[in-house]
Amino acid sequence: MPRRLQSVPNFSEGRREGVVRDIIEAATTPGLKVLDWSSDPDHNRSVVTVVGEPEAVLAGLRAMTARAVSLIDLRTHRGSHPRMGAMDVVPLIPLLEMTMDEAVALADRLARELAAAHDLPVYLYGEAATRPAHRDLSRVREGQFEGLAAVIGRPERRPDYGPARLHPTAGATAVGARGPLVAFNVNLSTPDVAVAKRIARQIRESGGGLPAVRAIGLALAGRDETQVSMNLVDFRRTSLGVAYRAVAEAAAAAGVGVTSSEIVGLAPAEALLAEAAGALRLAGFSSGQVLELRLLEEDEAPAGLEEGSRPR
Amino acid sequence: MPRRLQSVPNFSEGRREGVVRDIIEAATTPGLKVLDWSSDPDHNRSVVTVVGEPEAVLAGLRAMTARAVSLIDLRTHRGSHPRMGAMDVVPLIPLLEMTMDEAVALADRLARELAAAHDLPVYLYGEAATRPAHRDLSRVREGQFEGLAAVIGRPERRPDYGPARLHPTAGATAVGARGPLVAFNVNLSTPDVAVAKRIARQIRESGGGLPAVRAIGLALAGRDETQVSMNLVDFRRTSLGVAYRAVAEAAAAAGVGVTSSEIVGLAPAEALLAEAAGALRLAGFSSGQVLELRLLEEDEAPAGLEEGSRPR
Repeated sequence: MPRRLQSVPNFSEGRREGVVRDIIEAATTPGLKVLDWSSDPDHNRSVVTVVGEPEAVLAGLRAMTARAVSLIDLRTHRGSHPRMGAMDVVPLIPLLEMTMDEAVALADRLARELAAAHDLPVYLYGEAATRPAHRDLSRVREGQFEGLAAVIGRPERRPDYGPARLHPTAGATAVGARGPLVAFNVNLSTPDVAVAKRIARQIRESGGGLPAVRAIGLALAGRDETQVSMNLVDFRRTSLGVAYRAVAEAAAAAGVGVTSSEIVGLAPAEALLAEAAGALRLAGFSSGQVLELRLLEEDEAPAGLEEGSRPR
Repeated sequence: MPRRLQSVPNFSEGRREGVVRDIIEAATTPGLKVLDWSSDPDHNRSVVTVVGEPEAVLAGLRAMTARAVSLIDLRTHRGSHPRMGAMDVVPLIPLLEMTMDEAVALADRLARELAAAHDLPVYLYGEAATRPAHRDLSRVREGQFEGLAAVIGRPERRPDYGPARLHPTAGATAVGARGPLVAFNVNLSTPDVAVAKRIARQIRESGGGLPAVRAIGLALAGRDETQVSMNLVDFRRTSLGVAYRAVAEAAAAAGVGVTSSEIVGLAPAEALLAEAAGALRLAGFSSGQVLELRLLEEDEAPAGLEEGSRPR
């Protein structure tokens, strides 16, 4: 299979569509694909999913950051989502034929390059963090653009690269490495949002629940249902099925049912295939048995009796 | 996504490895991949899975057939699997961005080409059949190589293309079109093969059971288990999960359990994703949400704001 790096850059513009398109179009690079993007006007923020050859992804991220730095002014930016910079967060996710160590090394290089190119403070977070506290993005972003100016000079808040002061308009950027995240929501047959909030608190890692699960309870406007909205930040530690059953059991204990669930955006095949294998009690199943995934293999391999084929 | 045609040619050699390799290597064509192959010495037969651009697949199949016709002599061929020709069966399976009608048209063309190239009788079967009886491959092959010689001149047994007499050494070939087939086995916690055989008879379509399911009961040498071995010939009519549960329920009624299951060879992603979606009660899930499947999309699409990306 070819090496593939994923990134999900978040930038601080979700209202001016022309600006959003301008920034995303800057990612146009041979070898990089924009798989998905969404803008949220309340958050005043956009999230893009790009995948490609590692070098192509870094080139696209450098170009997007340059556009974001020149087009977004944090001094006038308002939105409901926490943020500290024009290009706010850039996670690198090793996808195919890449290790987390490789993604961490690329994050380090990208952080250094962005800092040098724009005289911008850049923090390393997640698996790329150089300080334990910075594994958690919310700690890096504490105080946001407005509050960070006063504390960025403190030793524990200094960036990994770039100056120990905010960029006047573009603030600061966090570059990190992480595993793939699955956004997974389970809907409950009750309009009582207190039930959803209680279940979310009970099952999330921060409440002593399931490892690698973040969860909040939400009302669903115009519907008689409520939602436990989860981020599974490591589906190998807590799978979709384990998270689903935890919500369903907690709901049953509260006398309500599960009406449906949904995956928001994209999910890695492995996260779903594991559920199929579990439901069918498949023994010895591998993703190499999925026809379409075999089609992703390097075209350069000899077409005849390549390594992937085998006598049985 | 690019157009992709799959084929699983079966040829009548499973013992002489040099001959098997020679035939498979003939498939080496730009745009075609050999994903899998296996030889069975008892059957004296090999099965190859190839995928690629439709024209590349047809070219590979013509080349493999030419090698099989020149290297295999049915007059001296012995094996436990029914067969009528050197290149015995060639199914075409529409995989990505192709309709069954297109696969049927390609099967018709390939059958005509093979007949003309080798003065070989060629039958159309499956979805490509021109006579209702020939939808069923076992009806086409009735009598096998040895018995077909005497009846091939009868109107109801005449080939669709080529002469109404067998090729002296290469016999006859069946070319067809079908949907993807999933080979799915469920293992039972009993050494009594009569139980597996009874369940197989009960659940298979020919016994009035599940549509599009073929099944046999098998002993598993050296194990205290037996197996219900199934071919799901249309997983959209009977899914893996429905077949699994039918076997599990029949087993429970017989007082035995299911120990595990297995998929033999390759399965289409959709067959497995459907099980995951079912197990998780996913609403509105589409295979376009699977990251790796999105990577299969045409590289020629504009890398910027292509149709596949969307604001939400």
